[in-house]
Amino acid sequence: MTHLLGPGGRDAVAVLLVGDELLLGTVQDTNGAWLARSCTAAGLRTVAVQVVPDVQDRITDAVLRAVAQAGSVVVSGGIGPTSDDLTREALAAACGCALVRDEPAAAAIEAWLAGLGRTAGPAVLRMARRPECAEMIVNPAGSAPGVRLVLADAVVYAVPGVPAELQSMVESRVLPDIVRRAALRAPTLSRTVEVALLGESAVTALLNDVEAAVAADPTAELAYLARPAHVTVRVSVRDTPQAAASRLQGYILAVRDALGEYVIGEEGTTLAQAVVESLAERRQTVATAESLTGGGVAREITTVPGASAVLRGGVVAYASDLKTSMLGVPPDLLVDPGAVSAVVAGQMASGVKRVTGADWAVATTGVAGPEAVGSHPPGEVYIAVAGPAGTVTRRLRLPGERARVRRMSTAHALDLLRRQLATDVAGAGSPAPRESAAGPNR
Amino acid sequence: MTHLLGPGGRDAVAVLLVGDELLLGTVQDTNGAWLARSCTAAGLRTVAVQVVPDVQDRITDAVLRAVAQAGSVVVSGGIGPTSDDLTREALAAACGCALVRDEPAAAAIEAWLAGLGRTAGPAVLRMARRPECAEMIVNPAGSAPGVRLVLADAVVYAVPGVPAELQSMVESRVLPDIVRRAALRAPTLSRTVEVALLGESAVTALLNDVEAAVAADPTAELAYLARPAHVTVRVSVRDTPQAAASRLQGYILAVRDALGEYVIGEEGTTLAQAVVESLAERRQTVATAESLTGGGVAREITTVPGASAVLRGGVVAYASDLKTSMLGVPPDLLVDPGAVSAVVAGQMASGVKRVTGADWAVATTGVAGPEAVGSHPPGEVYIAVAGPAGTVTRRLRLPGERARVRRMSTAHALDLLRRQLATDVAGAGSPAPRESAAGPNR
Repeated sequence: MTHLLGPGGRDAVAVLLVGDELLLGTVQDTNGAWLARSCTAAGLRTVAVQVVPDVQDRITDAVLRAVAQAGSVVVSGGIGPTSDDLTREALAAACGCALVRDEPAAAAIEAWLAGLGRTAGPAVLRMARRPECAEMIVNPAGSAPGVRLVLADAVVYAVPGVPAELQSMVESRVLPDIVRRAALRAPTLSRTVEVALLGESAVTALLNDVEAAVAADPTAELAYLARPAHVTVRVSVRDTPQAAASRLQGYILAVRDALGEYVIGEEGTTLAQAVVESLAERRQTVATAESLTGGGVAREITTVPGASAVLRGGVVAYASDLKTSMLGVPPDLLVDPGAVSAVVAGQMASGVKRVTGADWAVATTGVAGPEAVGSHPPGEVYIAVAGPAGTVTRRLRLPGERARVRRMSTAHALDLLRRQLATDVAGAGSPAPRESAAGPNR
Repeated sequence: MTHLLGPGGRDAVAVLLVGDELLLGTVQDTNGAWLARSCTAAGLRTVAVQVVPDVQDRITDAVLRAVAQAGSVVVSGGIGPTSDDLTREALAAACGCALVRDEPAAAAIEAWLAGLGRTAGPAVLRMARRPECAEMIVNPAGSAPGVRLVLADAVVYAVPGVPAELQSMVESRVLPDIVRRAALRAPTLSRTVEVALLGESAVTALLNDVEAAVAADPTAELAYLARPAHVTVRVSVRDTPQAAASRLQGYILAVRDALGEYVIGEEGTTLAQAVVESLAERRQTVATAESLTGGGVAREITTVPGASAVLRGGVVAYASDLKTSMLGVPPDLLVDPGAVSAVVAGQMASGVKRVTGADWAVATTGVAGPEAVGSHPPGEVYIAVAGPAGTVTRRLRLPGERARVRRMSTAHALDLLRRQLATDVAGAGSPAPRESAAGPNR
């Protein structure tokens, strides 16, 4: 099998991420994954992603090695105004050019700052310099222009490290240029199936037969990506677009069939998207009542554009007495069995359903940690879903630290709602649209 | 100035992240930043972070290059049970050994699976193999054991790609081993100052004098890390621990002094932590009323352990009519000026303060997008804080897409609360603790 991500070729892209903070670990890089995803979507192959410190020689070395590996090199970071921004110097050294001041770029920087009521000092005008052999790339979202130059048989692009500026410049200027030069013929097509709350080894066990079929196809690959609460199964086929699309479709159907009820969607679908889509199809609404997740379930639902058509609202009942005053949970239940219990989770769900007039409600209560609450250890969590046919509850014992317990509780709550929606055949497609449910499109 | 992140030495660590998904961009890596942060905290220097595809030869090449750069190499990923896990094979090729079955590891895997009521198939037992010259590393959090071997003058550690398993194995086995071998003498000390809602170039402009002082000190470095709504200023000094700590303290005080009211804390302090700490010191409580942020403000506050001492709870009033029924916003205000207005934000804040009995309340309303709402474009947002001395509101015009508008609205709401708390001298340290406010330690 020829691996789809081998080096070389004009469709090969190497990514260099410049910044001490990435080697010190004070920041979580997101540019590498974004660039890789964008290249894949454009039919290009990312063959290297590498972090480089704010050291001129190290940047130069990394650029020289990258141009031997790939037809295009994207260098992110190190082109801002501060003293540790050294990518321009490093590129000049790599191509043996002097740094020169680019007058149109200097004028653009001055105009941009004038619009903010500021003047350009010498630090800012560092950004107007480029290697003599290079050209500037307009920055549609900020003050630092990018740099484009040809080195050996490759094109090198220096772009900002600030994600919004990088994305804007790469989408509008860099990717179109790379794609034009690459003149792609047999791109890699790739699709994913998204699986909730099933471990990676359980997923692979269910996919034994699909694995065998893919292993026998020299143009295809199967890969798994495990995250908390979520496994992505990715199938890739490299062939002419039509042949690839057709074989890919067959593999994807086989994957979905083998994984059954655990499949929540394709192409990055999240639990929240699955829930919002399912409710929107039924023209039904939902509300949330949250204790340990502190608003995380509602926030997750409202990440989805169009959530306003299905989410009525919710209550974060963090203090115990608010479970009674805002959700109508009987106070004696908060004493026995106590706030951390299935019966209180169920009461919270039915309470918020009643208060908001929603068709469905989901509730969470439990102990996120780090401390136990009475006899309840961290990770003891109860979730509930109230719907047209009644209320169901689940007890969870979640390992791990506070953030993980909260994240997994949020995922389990959304998944219980997803499953209840899937089994509620009565409600599917029945009621009339609720005019009152639609607030502003927030 | 000798750069603190140069290559070489026993305190130098190279990180290889194995996985096609990282080159395809279907996943956001977090292991690289976590490993870098952990190495820095242990006084080690991460000199390289590099992504490698699931291709045996590429992993072998990367390992051979890394052992020439660093005294220790950590390879994450590719040691699981699936067909694309090839790190063991690549390490065997790198050191010219055969792969052999490790009987104690096989027994441990079988025992671990038996505890889950499962049996170990041939795929799972792939994980029990190691290069003949290597030893196994116990996995405290999963089934895949790690691998440790000596190659050239370096030690190579292969660890799982699943973050929880990687972290557990690196903390308990790998880092102690590296630190012992490195026998550190002059470690790098590093501290940060955290700045909210001020752009990177404005931060550097305020720090001109500090930059000059650091530039004159050959052992010191100043670096900036910009994220949305947040800039981290990092000062590093490499010297004997005592000398480094003392000079570092001087630089940090100078940074704080120059940035004034924009400083929210040190060492990774978030806006939510600053707010929770400030409220806890005063023994006061807060509540939230959210529209476009959909629970994000409450969720952010509850990421902080101990939030239950200060957060009463909140309302997600996503549908307009809930702003009246749950928060008491007069219905005529929802018609004119409408839900997207400063007056409604203020009413939401004072409403949730009254309903929950909190000392403070924070509210958000506005348009996250992607669509406008009537005459209100995406990014038109109003925030309000109600406190003991009354209610203040702010109008924001936030550029960018839905996720950014929601994230920035959350940050501005928390920062307005932080600033109101800082200026409210009357409340500082006055009232008695509220017994009723403390729910379970969620």
